[in-house]
Amino acid sequence: MTTEPVPVEGSSDVRMRGFARRHTLTDALNWLDDQLAPLASQAVGLDVAVGRVLGQDIHSEVAVPGFARSMMDGFAVRAADTQGASAYNRLELTIVGRAGPAEAFSGQVGPGQAVRIATGAPMPEGADAVLPVEQVEADQEHLAAQGEVSPGKHVGQPGEDVAAGTVVFERGRRLRPQDLGVLSSIGVSQVQAVRQPQVRLLVTGNELLPAGSMPSGYRISDANGPMLGGLVARDGGLVHNPGIIADKQELILAALRDDADVVLVSGGSSVGPEDHVPVLLARHGELAIHGVAMRPSSPAGMGRLDNRLVFLLPGNPVSCLCAYDFFAGRAIRVLGGRSADWPYRMIYCPLARKLVSVVGRVDYARVVIRDGRAEPLAISGASILSSTTRSDGFVVVSADSEGHPVGAEVKVYLYD
Amino acid sequence: MTTEPVPVEGSSDVRMRGFARRHTLTDALNWLDDQLAPLASQAVGLDVAVGRVLGQDIHSEVAVPGFARSMMDGFAVRAADTQGASAYNRLELTIVGRAGPAEAFSGQVGPGQAVRIATGAPMPEGADAVLPVEQVEADQEHLAAQGEVSPGKHVGQPGEDVAAGTVVFERGRRLRPQDLGVLSSIGVSQVQAVRQPQVRLLVTGNELLPAGSMPSGYRISDANGPMLGGLVARDGGLVHNPGIIADKQELILAALRDDADVVLVSGGSSVGPEDHVPVLLARHGELAIHGVAMRPSSPAGMGRLDNRLVFLLPGNPVSCLCAYDFFAGRAIRVLGGRSADWPYRMIYCPLARKLVSVVGRVDYARVVIRDGRAEPLAISGASILSSTTRSDGFVVVSADSEGHPVGAEVKVYLYD
Repeated sequence: MTTEPVPVEGSSDVRMRGFARRHTLTDALNWLDDQLAPLASQAVGLDVAVGRVLGQDIHSEVAVPGFARSMMDGFAVRAADTQGASAYNRLELTIVGRAGPAEAFSGQVGPGQAVRIATGAPMPEGADAVLPVEQVEADQEHLAAQGEVSPGKHVGQPGEDVAAGTVVFERGRRLRPQDLGVLSSIGVSQVQAVRQPQVRLLVTGNELLPAGSMPSGYRISDANGPMLGGLVARDGGLVHNPGIIADKQELILAALRDDADVVLVSGGSSVGPEDHVPVLLARHGELAIHGVAMRPSSPAGMGRLDNRLVFLLPGNPVSCLCAYDFFAGRAIRVLGGRSADWPYRMIYCPLARKLVSVVGRVDYARVVIRDGRAEPLAISGASILSSTTRSDGFVVVSADSEGHPVGAEVKVYLYD
Repeated sequence: MTTEPVPVEGSSDVRMRGFARRHTLTDALNWLDDQLAPLASQAVGLDVAVGRVLGQDIHSEVAVPGFARSMMDGFAVRAADTQGASAYNRLELTIVGRAGPAEAFSGQVGPGQAVRIATGAPMPEGADAVLPVEQVEADQEHLAAQGEVSPGKHVGQPGEDVAAGTVVFERGRRLRPQDLGVLSSIGVSQVQAVRQPQVRLLVTGNELLPAGSMPSGYRISDANGPMLGGLVARDGGLVHNPGIIADKQELILAALRDDADVVLVSGGSSVGPEDHVPVLLARHGELAIHGVAMRPSSPAGMGRLDNRLVFLLPGNPVSCLCAYDFFAGRAIRVLGGRSADWPYRMIYCPLARKLVSVVGRVDYARVVIRDGRAEPLAISGASILSSTTRSDGFVVVSADSEGHPVGAEVKVYLYD
């Protein structure tokens, strides 16, 4: 009698008989982080730049505004002419013209004169303040000031929004909607943004039917492809999922060599006789991590093939989600210039029931939030994907912990 | 002398001479919420369904799994045959076949027999438990059990992930990546999802240059178009921005009648002589709200034209952002089936400086978070868009408050 598991066929150069030793999560993440840097940048138009990450500092060549402008609808005046004006001391001025947005008054505002002015219009020469309409009675030619303004009042100064020559945004900034407005206002119509990672899905398993097929007999429908597609999109990657690949070494190897920054392999990642991918990766590239001390997704693995990062995600869908979130999602975010941190919102709340784990292993426990307390799900096997749709989020129990007693405050990452 | 402001041309049926009275924010939101319900649903494929909102309950026609399956790599056995087995009491069984994923063992497992089985493979008849490989020594024909298993151990039962006939997801759920996996596993390849609102941008202003143009003379580049495009995308709308519309009544009216669920008008929304839009809306549709007691964006307005919701957003970019966030974004989210709530993360922290407001007016104050305290920006005029890019978020000061003293705990909505 020999020892199980069955040797992997054709694995003469890579002997894999079960996970002789599992990597710690810390070691696995350390390896991964050493591989990660934002991709090169590409030109991206303003209209599609929201959420993208700048690959360059943005300097402004211009001041915004580029000229002194009125901040109110009213009258451009010499502030000194309004001194002492009130409802009981109306001071009369002569209206000598008007200024609208991009329609300057071409003359000078002299003593005792005013120019009708709209918000955003350039200030006429000679005037140094704007008297708002609310403080005025006027006809076509004259106005009576009923209030006083000090020099500079209601006048926007050149450069007060953006000064010329300054750095407006730094490399690495993820662009907000209002950032696009500022970029536009300084005359920037496209930016250099970190390229979005190209992510190839490689879903294997002869038992699988295409996503969304009605399960039939002993064949089940691919759950991981659609889930991974949604996760990659969330993390800013561009997903390419050509469908299920048969469990044949040459097909898998060809897919691993597809044009992509990241390959996500779902299924065939463990040490069984059908698990070709680790062997292929070790033979043709680098299988750096295989087997991690965590539950679920202990068969997860990572490596490289040429320039591609390859993630071995277990076929069990909860394991697949967990391994994606710990490893692949992090890589996709960092390659795309984003923060490595999970995009999940966090809350802190007490446990409604104890949460048992094992020292030496990281646990990913799904919880429901009920009455402000986190309740671990009873059914939580790695194959029960609905445990991640019925739950509100998850708690990570670290490797140095045996779990947490009822009432202990835990950090919950919320799915949404 | 007549009273300013200047009457609006052609406004014989709508008299607008400044905002005689401003609506409260509460009144404005009450009117808006009365207009809002999710749009009708449309069929959406799984591959693009992440983040979409279900317009139907989803029932499962099938059980997942549809058959009893092994949860481990190992041997399908009769649990009774393993009773008492241990490293010191190895019990021998005869291997009579194998089962893989979607490859059933066609025979029966009798007493003293075992079938080699892979994770996910259908359980053979006669067997009621799986003995994991780790508890076994085996050659091709025999195994020695070194542990015992109870009936049902390591066997996934039919329907334990999803029971047939149950409601898997309810109408109104925003689909998570893992939801797509569950939908796929129950044979659902497309869902009815709430339609994404079509949002027409209508940017006016003769002083405006197209977005991203270098500002020139007294002409400035459109900042609001790109910003609104990013905001609409964030809130799940589909934006249509054909560029700047000249300040001509017939062009504006045609644009207001474009095929859209929502029209966002940027600029020309106040009560000045160039502000055509409120007049047009009142004459051809309904101008329900015009002027809101808030700062910035007091000239904001809302109404309807046929089936379209029309939002009058002030041209000053901070006002535009603020009015979008209070009104238009809410509408786009609810029309698309999402929560009315802001998508911003919230934190609570003390004020680093006092924040002054006025009773009767809601204030939208930009703050920087520094050393765990919220610091209101010094320069915060409605025209200074960079106040929203230099800040980390904003504080809303309610209408019944004169502001908050230094050290007061405030709720900050974080831009990101």
